[in-house]
Amino acid sequence: MPLSANNPDRTSWLHVDKHSDFPIQNIPFGVFLTRDDIITIGTRIGDTAIDLGALHQLGYFEGIPLTDDIFLQDSLNDFIADGRKTWRAVRNRIAEIFDANNNTLKNNTKHKETILFRLDEIEMQLPVQIGDYTDFYSSIEHATNVGTMFRDPDNALLPNWLHIPVGYHGRSSSIIPSGIPVHRPQGQTLPNGASEPVFGPSRLVDFELEMAFITTDANDLGEPIPIDEAEEYIFGLVLLNDWSARDIQKWEYVPLGPFLAKNFASSISPWIVTLDALEPYRVESPKAVKPQLDYLKYKGKKSYDINLEVAIQPENAKETVVSNSNFKYMYWNMVQQLTHHTVNGCPVNSGDMMGSGTISGPTEDSYGSMLELTWRGEKPLKMKDGSERKFINDNDTVIMRGYCENDGTRIGFGEVSTKLLPVYSK
Amino acid sequence: MPLSANNPDRTSWLHVDKHSDFPIQNIPFGVFLTRDDIITIGTRIGDTAIDLGALHQLGYFEGIPLTDDIFLQDSLNDFIADGRKTWRAVRNRIAEIFDANNNTLKNNTKHKETILFRLDEIEMQLPVQIGDYTDFYSSIEHATNVGTMFRDPDNALLPNWLHIPVGYHGRSSSIIPSGIPVHRPQGQTLPNGASEPVFGPSRLVDFELEMAFITTDANDLGEPIPIDEAEEYIFGLVLLNDWSARDIQKWEYVPLGPFLAKNFASSISPWIVTLDALEPYRVESPKAVKPQLDYLKYKGKKSYDINLEVAIQPENAKETVVSNSNFKYMYWNMVQQLTHHTVNGCPVNSGDMMGSGTISGPTEDSYGSMLELTWRGEKPLKMKDGSERKFINDNDTVIMRGYCENDGTRIGFGEVSTKLLPVYSK
Repeated sequence: MPLSANNPDRTSWLHVDKHSDFPIQNIPFGVFLTRDDIITIGTRIGDTAIDLGALHQLGYFEGIPLTDDIFLQDSLNDFIADGRKTWRAVRNRIAEIFDANNNTLKNNTKHKETILFRLDEIEMQLPVQIGDYTDFYSSIEHATNVGTMFRDPDNALLPNWLHIPVGYHGRSSSIIPSGIPVHRPQGQTLPNGASEPVFGPSRLVDFELEMAFITTDANDLGEPIPIDEAEEYIFGLVLLNDWSARDIQKWEYVPLGPFLAKNFASSISPWIVTLDALEPYRVESPKAVKPQLDYLKYKGKKSYDINLEVAIQPENAKETVVSNSNFKYMYWNMVQQLTHHTVNGCPVNSGDMMGSGTISGPTEDSYGSMLELTWRGEKPLKMKDGSERKFINDNDTVIMRGYCENDGTRIGFGEVSTKLLPVYSK
Repeated sequence: MPLSANNPDRTSWLHVDKHSDFPIQNIPFGVFLTRDDIITIGTRIGDTAIDLGALHQLGYFEGIPLTDDIFLQDSLNDFIADGRKTWRAVRNRIAEIFDANNNTLKNNTKHKETILFRLDEIEMQLPVQIGDYTDFYSSIEHATNVGTMFRDPDNALLPNWLHIPVGYHGRSSSIIPSGIPVHRPQGQTLPNGASEPVFGPSRLVDFELEMAFITTDANDLGEPIPIDEAEEYIFGLVLLNDWSARDIQKWEYVPLGPFLAKNFASSISPWIVTLDALEPYRVESPKAVKPQLDYLKYKGKKSYDINLEVAIQPENAKETVVSNSNFKYMYWNMVQQLTHHTVNGCPVNSGDMMGSGTISGPTEDSYGSMLELTWRGEKPLKMKDGSERKFINDNDTVIMRGYCENDGTRIGFGEVSTKLLPVYSK
């Protein structure tokens, strides 16, 4: 099926600002609560949210094989399980319905009343029920920075790093959509020079700038996914802030990996931008430094040119952009990650989420965490309000944004914005 | 509510063998497919499976506040979410219905036809939809053995081990019930003395003897569970074989922990034995070697005396018992594990599963993995058929069993039995 929804010449009868992340070429998928407290699956053009459940009930998806309630759900899991052919048919149809030259819905005031919402009339939810969350560690710059700081600058990359898209399991239950605040976590840390740990609030709360992809049902227990097929099982991408407590992490992570340092919260942007919408922004991945095993060898362009930025907004002050990075810096790409994940027969289901790992670029202003940007706190960052940050302060809001742009078309992710509250108290 | 279901003097009008794991004092919960291909929640007395959906429809739970379809589901999640008071009321009622002195159902042949099944008429399913799976590492003997083999015999325990119930996130999608076979996984390993990894079948497939507890909804994002309340949120326990590929693990696990070495399969016994049923078998946990932080200090007996055994059955041969251990050896107990898991505000939901980690005892024949039993393969185990095992061979079946016993009453878990098939091929 052709990607007619990507036609760069198409405009919509819905208003779209010039610098909007959501032109008619984007058509992301999300879940929202409407003003009537009904939960539904929707999309977005410009600043208009579109209720796909209502659109379907009114017959606008006629001819596409969809169950009656496919959009009247609190997650996209079933729709994603329908597979790529269905996603494409629906996305193409939405592009047609809202095309500037199509008057059918445009001239139907009654239908528009039930289908269209202003953004302030809806509340975005988590777009999928995430069965399993995996986080990779695929930026060579990030792995090198961390290795330099915590281990040996001369052997910053561990021996397995150039052979394996290293990853580990995260916690699904603490994945939250943009807008939900997070409390500063408490836990055990080992003070410098001490021999016994202490309990208290983490003093080194950090963000991690990541993106994550959402999968469809991919394989049965035992069955590996060949690398040529992996892309078929990727529905789309979101921005991910993988909150981290560096002092808790340092004390707990040996030998089984990070645990409480990570699982207090992971925030994602609420609109899933499809891989199809990102098609015009494909780029080559970085060249492999060492030969890779056959099962990880891929053909073609499997990375995407997605500009990323992180801003910190102190309470009652203007935000300061602290990092500019790009998804294309990832050394290991998504098809390699998904192939590696299943090479042992591990089953991947609809709604699973896989994070990239912190995306650091080659320059100091493109690092994806405060740990790296301030080099363990040694070089604090100046905020616009004159204050300094080594890590994230109570009541700071961390905002991540991402977008692709070429030839005047911009496809964006909106943002993931999360306020860090003080330690929880009853 | 009193635990009248635990009355040791009660007998049932259903036949129960003398050495059965499932006397009327047990009343575990599970999910099964019936001969009519209907999925339902059930329990078991002796070798009779009891359809709780049918029992409820016929009015046997009158007076207990339950939704009509609470047992007509493919998982126990909603029932578990109803909370401890409801579990107890239902378990007590089941004990009354099947009490030898109660003739109501006993004399109703029609009702019995729809409610009771022979074990060969049903097919056990996964009892819960597991949202998140966490695996701890709480046996001091296991951690010491592994530390001795792979790191430094003089500093076998890492500095954090005596302070933290160390744990990490596992994969939910590959958790399977007893009876489902597993393929030998493939992956990357680094041959001894080599500098580059190779790809191929794991040569060191191992079991890990564990138990796991299943939780109910415990807390919201940000909210820690105090240790005095933790027990309220534990529904019950199952046997867990946490399959491991030791050669894959060794190469991949630094620095983020085990990943593909573990997530190809984890097998559990299908009947969840409630914490209530285990009440008579409470014992003290091992004495703490070092002082523990306040949030991990508990009162009372929080461990359970559960005998555990592992057997290996080569194809077409008799099984050989290779390990006898006990759940009571766990250095960190369940309330400490659950409290630690949430101290940073990580949310725990109904149907989450938390594994104990390999349960090794103090003697060589009580170790919970082949890695330890054969000391990395240096001391192969003799099977009854004359063959030897360093690790698990293709077509071997690994069987784990567990039971409590005192004063003539035995409460057991049945078994988790899993055959290891050769590498997957299409």
